[in-house]
Amino acid sequence: MKKNITQCVLGILVAASSVITHAQQPTTIVGMEQLAWSEIAPGVWSAQIGEAEPMTFRELAGAPSRLDDMEAMGETEFPFDESQTHGQVIGTRTSVRLPLGLTEQVYGLGVQFRNMNRRGQVYHLRTDHYGGVLGRTHAPSPFYVTSDGYGVLFNTVKWISVYPGIGNRKDSTLPPIRDRTTDPAWQARPTSDAVEASAMTEGMEVIVFAGPTPLEAVQRYNLYFGGGALVPRWGLGFWHRVPTAATAEAVTAEVDEFAKRDFPLDVIGLEPGWQSHAYPGSFDWSPVRFPDPRGFVDAMGERDLKVNLWENPYISPTSSIFEEMKPYTGSHTVWLGEVPDYTMPEARELISDHHQKSHLDIGVSGYKIDEVDGVDSWLWPDHATFPSGTSAEDMRQTYGSQVQKWQSDMFRASDTRTYGLVRGSNAGASAYPYAIYSDYYNHKGFVTALCNSSLSGVLWTPEIRSANSDEEWVRRMQTVVFSPLAMLNAWSSGLKPWSREEVIPEIRDAMKWRVRFLPYLYTAFAQYHFEGTPPFRAMVLEPGYIPSKDEKGVLDDVSNPYAQAVRRDVTDQYMMGDSLLVAPFFMGQKERTVILPIGNWYDFYTGELAGNGEVITVPADLSFIPLFVKEGGIIPLLKEANNTSVWTKGVDLEVRHYGTEAGSTRLYDDDGKTFAYDRGEYSWYAINVEKSDRGKLKGSVLQSSGDFPQTFGKIKWKFMTE
Amino acid sequence: MKKNITQCVLGILVAASSVITHAQQPTTIVGMEQLAWSEIAPGVWSAQIGEAEPMTFRELAGAPSRLDDMEAMGETEFPFDESQTHGQVIGTRTSVRLPLGLTEQVYGLGVQFRNMNRRGQVYHLRTDHYGGVLGRTHAPSPFYVTSDGYGVLFNTVKWISVYPGIGNRKDSTLPPIRDRTTDPAWQARPTSDAVEASAMTEGMEVIVFAGPTPLEAVQRYNLYFGGGALVPRWGLGFWHRVPTAATAEAVTAEVDEFAKRDFPLDVIGLEPGWQSHAYPGSFDWSPVRFPDPRGFVDAMGERDLKVNLWENPYISPTSSIFEEMKPYTGSHTVWLGEVPDYTMPEARELISDHHQKSHLDIGVSGYKIDEVDGVDSWLWPDHATFPSGTSAEDMRQTYGSQVQKWQSDMFRASDTRTYGLVRGSNAGASAYPYAIYSDYYNHKGFVTALCNSSLSGVLWTPEIRSANSDEEWVRRMQTVVFSPLAMLNAWSSGLKPWSREEVIPEIRDAMKWRVRFLPYLYTAFAQYHFEGTPPFRAMVLEPGYIPSKDEKGVLDDVSNPYAQAVRRDVTDQYMMGDSLLVAPFFMGQKERTVILPIGNWYDFYTGELAGNGEVITVPADLSFIPLFVKEGGIIPLLKEANNTSVWTKGVDLEVRHYGTEAGSTRLYDDDGKTFAYDRGEYSWYAINVEKSDRGKLKGSVLQSSGDFPQTFGKIKWKFMTE
Repeated sequence: MKKNITQCVLGILVAASSVITHAQQPTTIVGMEQLAWSEIAPGVWSAQIGEAEPMTFRELAGAPSRLDDMEAMGETEFPFDESQTHGQVIGTRTSVRLPLGLTEQVYGLGVQFRNMNRRGQVYHLRTDHYGGVLGRTHAPSPFYVTSDGYGVLFNTVKWISVYPGIGNRKDSTLPPIRDRTTDPAWQARPTSDAVEASAMTEGMEVIVFAGPTPLEAVQRYNLYFGGGALVPRWGLGFWHRVPTAATAEAVTAEVDEFAKRDFPLDVIGLEPGWQSHAYPGSFDWSPVRFPDPRGFVDAMGERDLKVNLWENPYISPTSSIFEEMKPYTGSHTVWLGEVPDYTMPEARELISDHHQKSHLDIGVSGYKIDEVDGVDSWLWPDHATFPSGTSAEDMRQTYGSQVQKWQSDMFRASDTRTYGLVRGSNAGASAYPYAIYSDYYNHKGFVTALCNSSLSGVLWTPEIRSANSDEEWVRRMQTVVFSPLAMLNAWSSGLKPWSREEVIPEIRDAMKWRVRFLPYLYTAFAQYHFEGTPPFRAMVLEPGYIPSKDEKGVLDDVSNPYAQAVRRDVTDQYMMGDSLLVAPFFMGQKERTVILPIGNWYDFYTGELAGNGEVITVPADLSFIPLFVKEGGIIPLLKEANNTSVWTKGVDLEVRHYGTEAGSTRLYDDDGKTFAYDRGEYSWYAINVEKSDRGKLKGSVLQSSGDFPQTFGKIKWKFMTE
Repeated sequence: MKKNITQCVLGILVAASSVITHAQQPTTIVGMEQLAWSEIAPGVWSAQIGEAEPMTFRELAGAPSRLDDMEAMGETEFPFDESQTHGQVIGTRTSVRLPLGLTEQVYGLGVQFRNMNRRGQVYHLRTDHYGGVLGRTHAPSPFYVTSDGYGVLFNTVKWISVYPGIGNRKDSTLPPIRDRTTDPAWQARPTSDAVEASAMTEGMEVIVFAGPTPLEAVQRYNLYFGGGALVPRWGLGFWHRVPTAATAEAVTAEVDEFAKRDFPLDVIGLEPGWQSHAYPGSFDWSPVRFPDPRGFVDAMGERDLKVNLWENPYISPTSSIFEEMKPYTGSHTVWLGEVPDYTMPEARELISDHHQKSHLDIGVSGYKIDEVDGVDSWLWPDHATFPSGTSAEDMRQTYGSQVQKWQSDMFRASDTRTYGLVRGSNAGASAYPYAIYSDYYNHKGFVTALCNSSLSGVLWTPEIRSANSDEEWVRRMQTVVFSPLAMLNAWSSGLKPWSREEVIPEIRDAMKWRVRFLPYLYTAFAQYHFEGTPPFRAMVLEPGYIPSKDEKGVLDDVSNPYAQAVRRDVTDQYMMGDSLLVAPFFMGQKERTVILPIGNWYDFYTGELAGNGEVITVPADLSFIPLFVKEGGIIPLLKEANNTSVWTKGVDLEVRHYGTEAGSTRLYDDDGKTFAYDRGEYSWYAINVEKSDRGKLKGSVLQSSGDFPQTFGKIKWKFMTE
């Protein structure tokens, strides 16, 4: 895997004979030291520049590294030329320089809403609500993966600026110099030979994750941070949030309407009004709207529904724990609430004890952690102070992770899995069972974020809130049911799935598919946990996928004054699990193109061959979201159901096979709700389809490992392409 | 002028009886120290927090403070409650906290393209090309003025984050707490009581400028930094830039076409192609396109035309001074050019000597300094190093100022005034004769930037480059001729003023107005220099102007999830000089509203009364840009001319009076091109219009001060409202 960057560049220099070259051909990077790497986990190397930092993503991670699973991935070597890696500390700034090939592409850097390929843009990574500013986002993870099949984490919680393929040092191997006035081959930005990054800190750890493929690099990253979150089975059903001032009676009436109208529902989310005071929040139940919290949660439980509570972490003077929390809050208020310093054990203990007693002990299943990201003008300023001495920036960069941590620890201590939502996260959060969301509401941006989340070890939900038309309503619903968390967030709109009468069948159909995919999707989450494979994945992680290239730009004194190349990233389709390609329609589309990787791909609904390594066009129809299955793909489904609890009752499965070739997949099973899987209580089933000499397909299911008793019933086989 | 902030807040507390108040009523700000102020110039106070910084805006300023002119503004006292001013240094971060009244509005913070009122937004001030990101702009001056009539400069060149009216400390006087679920008066962001700011530095100077009006605070700021730039008279004519690869012959033919077609022209701008190599630039003339530079500049001079050269500061290996400059360049390249460290005298001397000999000595009038601002991906990274030890951030924040400084010093040493363009500047730049510009090209944004530039001691040009329609072409031209620098920048489009045949009369008419306004405009620039009054001014600096208020917002889960108030800033009209209100039309407008301050205002073209302290609607017509003159306003004009050199030949003036009342104005005169004015060689004329008992108006012109011999000829009076 080692590459000689210098040779690549020289190839170009020889080819271009009529241009000016810099006189120097340097061999050393002035003032920077070569990094010293040591393997800290299988296929994972670390180098420390300067001083070790007191807080890193390792301490914020949700679980210990899954070293055995990493070991099982096989041996690998350091993925690029160590001699080309450099670091430097000057005053309070630490910088790092790693090599980058001339055609190497860079992916990741957190939940980004534009593009896939990060090469050629600067990212000032800051935790923030996304509002169109590159780099400021809900999970600004300083982790990237390249097309050459390795990953790099800058393991600092500081604000870091990353320069992937930006610029050239004067003492590096420089590309040829051309004259803009006369040479049509002049490049506005000469091809860069490095990824550079720096932060205001007196030291930084850099961690490299081997591949050899981009997907394997991501897997190692996730496993290093404890493996992906194995969410409870109920978390993969349909979620609905009620209007903010709803009472217990109103909520009960609303959920009963779901059953009456035959719409799926697994989780009901309460908004700020469940509290006695918000904003700022008291964290205490409203005696007016929820006089009997336990009775309410029990009533929901009887309907197989879980209760999720909206919260932001800023505490009201009216809270029952305000006086106790006061010594542990920062200098500034947020919505006049004080800001707990959750880096302090006293603050964590206080809030956990309160939430355990008031919420978890009566059956609350989890939280929606709002407003831990930004916008700047809502949160504390960069110069706010906190009693632990943690800086305001560090606090902002990690606040979402901190809340995920104390909540996750609380649920784990009760041997109860949770699944929730969070608006701010960062690197190292793979093991936290939270989907990130945003007040931003661009449908295409939401799907781009879904693709990018897979490259950073986080989950993302393109939640549906409202729509300007029936078409948008359907398109958003079809997308969210093929995402990590399928939710209608009607806190403000008050909408129900049946609110737009003309498209009730399409909405119901999409929601029911969500529940039907449970066996397939739950297995994908188990793979996330045990193998680090993201359940939803950008196409660049898919074998056989060929990323598109940049196109030559046209000079325009308004829109493109430097005639820069135009990037064509594919951000509107993604993989769910190992076999399914999802290509949502967007509002206004009469048709859309879908890029099929190399290999045969089949229409999910009909089993017909759709294409192979080509771009196909799919005519739009409101009734469906385009789904494709790869050759030999096997999809285990539930039969139609409205609640995921049917699985725990020995439900029959429908197993679909696509294509004309043999295939195999796996099915994961456990109790679906506790951490028993961590104690070995789970099973894997091998689902195989064999092809006889006469071309006849035949399926079988075998318990391949584990001794957890089977929870599903009979299998009905469907050979879709027969 | 002193205010008791606490009393104001208590007023609100008493009025709102049904809400929760925080228990504490603090008297001290924990951990921060009260600032100690000392008067450092008339009406200017300084307080130092922590250590003094090695580089501040004072050292970057273009001229010494005009203390006598500040003294002449009269005595004043410290403009707010000193006891409410605090500072703090923690580690490498310095923060400051100043009081802000509940209804006090904040203006300034550099060349901003959105809004006037900065209250309620966070500004991370960074030198950058504007691309839609709040705070990142061409001149991110950390100077603000409030509606209470004072100014504040955070005198640090570091990246600074300013929080004007953002948030509340928990130990400040907190507004009442309300419940969002039940209280309609709930505020998403409770009214803040302070301006806070902080930067990564171990100390910071804060400078306060007294008013008592916002305009006077701006005047003091400009005078403190040497007074505004008194540009040469030719700089106020029309400028035109030729296509980038134009030869001397092509340029000569192009300028002769201006004369032949009867279009004004004073300055011709050469683009990168004048150099032997660009980008990166050699700074040497192209022997192919300009074989006889002196002959070319002479030929332009014979036509009364000045020559301006485009440059960016990144040096090509092909430059005649490359080898000498090499020791003084930074670690990274820009367009493969090396980056001179102009904080080093060696680098300044080298570049000045070269430019003096190659350009200034043969008659070149000045430069367009491009690309000293951003975008990040074009310039050096934040961790680049420079031989002087100046940090990359400090270099980026001040690079435009540094280039302005060495160029201005070079011209001053030759006793020749220059006027040019620059894409990056910062605080303290009032005395530099450069207009800022941008590749951004939104017409409304350009006018907003023009308004805001007046609040930060810089000049801005909404240059015209191209247009998608005749209408846009005319509207942009009409705006740019009423701006600090009137230029058609056709480097890429190759357009000429006559390129759109259908609207040649409108374009010619607008351009000719530019030249006609020379006496009025040149006087406005003299006031800028001697009195600090910006020649173009935001309406908030105009007496009698009433800023509009925020409107209540409507809850929307997509566009306004917190139901925030909607701001209605007036950013589409401005003052030119003391008497003229300019209200440009924008593409597509069939009419526009104009806010007339209190007092009678008259139509410039007809002299008819337009209104008084009211909002009027003006129907659009392609033939004119709306202009209004205040009661008694006097506008000295040239007669029709195509070149400003007519003034130096004893030209007759037309002096217009508007309204029915007596009035007076001043007219400034000097040689128009050297620094002789600095040696006292100038004159002021009093232009008075008196009203007889019978209501008859009569004008007179008197030399009121100075003994510079009169350069203009006879006066023709025009009483427009008679």
